[in-house]
Amino acid sequence: MKKKLYNIAIIGLGNIGSYLFNFLNKNKDNISNKNNASFKIVFVSAKNKNKKRNIKIKKDQWLSDYKQVLKKKNVDIIIELIGGADGPAKQLVFGALKNKKHVVTANKALISKYGDELSKIAEKNKVNLEYEAAVCGGVPIIRSIKEGLIANKINRIYGIFNGTSNYVLSTMDKNNISFNETIKQAIKLGYAEADPSSDINGDDVAAKVKILSCLSFNSFISKNIHVEGIKDVNEEDIINANKLGYKIKLMGFSEVLNNKIFQRVHPTLVDKTSYIAGVDGVLNAVIVDGKPIGKNIIQGEGAGPSATTSALVSDISSILRGNVKFPFAISNTKRKKFSSGKITDLFFSSYVRLNVKDKYGVLTDVTKTFSNNKVSIKRVLQNPYKNKKNSSIVIITHRSKDSHIQKTLKTLAKKSYIIQKPKLLRIENS
Amino acid sequence: MKKKLYNIAIIGLGNIGSYLFNFLNKNKDNISNKNNASFKIVFVSAKNKNKKRNIKIKKDQWLSDYKQVLKKKNVDIIIELIGGADGPAKQLVFGALKNKKHVVTANKALISKYGDELSKIAEKNKVNLEYEAAVCGGVPIIRSIKEGLIANKINRIYGIFNGTSNYVLSTMDKNNISFNETIKQAIKLGYAEADPSSDINGDDVAAKVKILSCLSFNSFISKNIHVEGIKDVNEEDIINANKLGYKIKLMGFSEVLNNKIFQRVHPTLVDKTSYIAGVDGVLNAVIVDGKPIGKNIIQGEGAGPSATTSALVSDISSILRGNVKFPFAISNTKRKKFSSGKITDLFFSSYVRLNVKDKYGVLTDVTKTFSNNKVSIKRVLQNPYKNKKNSSIVIITHRSKDSHIQKTLKTLAKKSYIIQKPKLLRIENS
Repeated sequence: MKKKLYNIAIIGLGNIGSYLFNFLNKNKDNISNKNNASFKIVFVSAKNKNKKRNIKIKKDQWLSDYKQVLKKKNVDIIIELIGGADGPAKQLVFGALKNKKHVVTANKALISKYGDELSKIAEKNKVNLEYEAAVCGGVPIIRSIKEGLIANKINRIYGIFNGTSNYVLSTMDKNNISFNETIKQAIKLGYAEADPSSDINGDDVAAKVKILSCLSFNSFISKNIHVEGIKDVNEEDIINANKLGYKIKLMGFSEVLNNKIFQRVHPTLVDKTSYIAGVDGVLNAVIVDGKPIGKNIIQGEGAGPSATTSALVSDISSILRGNVKFPFAISNTKRKKFSSGKITDLFFSSYVRLNVKDKYGVLTDVTKTFSNNKVSIKRVLQNPYKNKKNSSIVIITHRSKDSHIQKTLKTLAKKSYIIQKPKLLRIENS
Repeated sequence: MKKKLYNIAIIGLGNIGSYLFNFLNKNKDNISNKNNASFKIVFVSAKNKNKKRNIKIKKDQWLSDYKQVLKKKNVDIIIELIGGADGPAKQLVFGALKNKKHVVTANKALISKYGDELSKIAEKNKVNLEYEAAVCGGVPIIRSIKEGLIANKINRIYGIFNGTSNYVLSTMDKNNISFNETIKQAIKLGYAEADPSSDINGDDVAAKVKILSCLSFNSFISKNIHVEGIKDVNEEDIINANKLGYKIKLMGFSEVLNNKIFQRVHPTLVDKTSYIAGVDGVLNAVIVDGKPIGKNIIQGEGAGPSATTSALVSDISSILRGNVKFPFAISNTKRKKFSSGKITDLFFSSYVRLNVKDKYGVLTDVTKTFSNNKVSIKRVLQNPYKNKKNSSIVIITHRSKDSHIQKTLKTLAKKSYIIQKPKLLRIENS
């Protein structure tokens, strides 16, 4: 029996697009055999035809204008690897779905911004919108939530979703070097992009959290999310954390509490002996907490052409097998609207660092300020700075309402003995 | 549009069958919505109708003879939860596939013994043979290899595949109690069956390793596997391991080296700080090492009705979505025959414990015996036993050929100063 043939177009030929192009050509038989369907790369397109790429494009494969692909009748699957939430990527993906073509994309910015609209078009036109590569690269988390863990009512999903920031924090910890020095190294080694801002400021993790929320809770995309990056985590905090038995990780969290979705991204202190503390370097880890399964962990490489290609090929394979699924696990008519919770309503044990003038009565006033704001103190660590008349006071609080801790810090910020904006890092026991 | 309806029969109503029955009834709408297809439990059957079960069976659902289900035209999916490689389970699954019915099973003994024959019938009749629940319960490893990681050429798969033995070893380690005492506790707490022999002797892990090999390497089932259980691991070994910086875990391994498949199950010393050392209690963890993805880890609860039901429902959902796949990831016509490698040809750093009479020249003779057999020694730990004229010599070897180590132990076993059969535990650096 002749296998069904799918025609593929790859739009965007950067590192990932080129890697995928070569991988599909090299592994064509194997992928066809496993999915009992064959495929052909009929078109490719990119901004600059003459850029040097390590791929062999046939003459009739090249499209000078990527938008032509939307009108081609012999294209079944469009792979969008342009990037960016708006502009050409948006036009391409909307156009593809409207023209009843399956879409595979690695674009988390696009999905986290326009996913709701896109999934409606995909559902109406009965085509796949696949985006495994948009979240945690090679970690098959999208497919696991939608298929392997389909039975479960998920109440919490969290973890380390950004390889660059995780590399930076674990390198600072290991080598005892500054944030700026580590970033420079990371760019040099290819672990960070030339402009690593979205990795560092938490936006990249935020996009992933928004997507994972929809899949986990069958909700629509919620734009309400608390986002802090790692720019303000310095060596001193890392050294203090170690002294106190913690590691610092940039983590994303989404959970449903009292019918509200709480989404947040922030540097987090985790117990040194916990699983998550050991996830170092460019690795990603996703922890799904649900019923009846309990906690499930998936860990792997989060980025780079090879991990991303693994995800893209799993998406393409799903289409080849005719495994049409709702983009967000369930029909849009069944997705729910949750209201959003605020981080200020959550409870944390927190790490607070104050740089203060070394003078009589400071510690007393600090502890009084905490207790006035209903925050009780668990541990105090005071380090005088050498050759200065200042010292650093580190406080670990008992579990307290985040709004109370934030209020405490606001009050403290105004005190005459405070030299620098007080630093707050939240602690998680998971 | 009306959803396609699938009729389901559940055969076997023990803990898992009953839990699944209730779960499917309670979550019917949700499962139907997610898969865009509906289902109905039309029949159930079990050995003893009058056994007390916490489920409500309608009169017309009960089949007095499970074999009747094979002839029922209105049955699309048969869920086999009888257990055992032969007898009724075998008859049911062979019969179901021959009668073109989809099969979902949690039966690792059956799949690891008859999987090759069963998959041929399933492929010929274009029905699904799904067995996610047979390997590591709630950990969606089968689906991940077949779908999420489909792009990868896997060269090694290993991990902790048995919750009972992992519970026993971690409890012995934590509470410093004997093997027999721990087993008694585990049975009492429901972490081990009344007869835990297949968990303890390594057979359960061996069945899972055989299944994972086929999926990972696109091979046929290989019956050649080295299997050691945990019965001979005692408190002394656990204490020694801790002193030397290791934990002891029962692990399964399968890998392809020089076109041969090496399958093995044995208690293994792993670095205390490694990821796998931290996987405690009833948890399972599977590590997949492949290209282009690198190392991928999936961890979760390995057994029990809730974890198993999560897996069974993911299998049922796959059938509801019409996601027909080859049972072993690729057509039987494309599966490969590998020859089998022997553990004696592999290289390990090993832990050897010798109980010896405390007399002059013993250590010299021991070390000479190692070097005569081309095994070089890395560390020695000698503990005299209190109030006895014996002592224990623990040796950590450098990486050596397993056959050389085994020969060393055979030679040592014959020495007059050896009191007890020498103990060998292999070390893994992964």
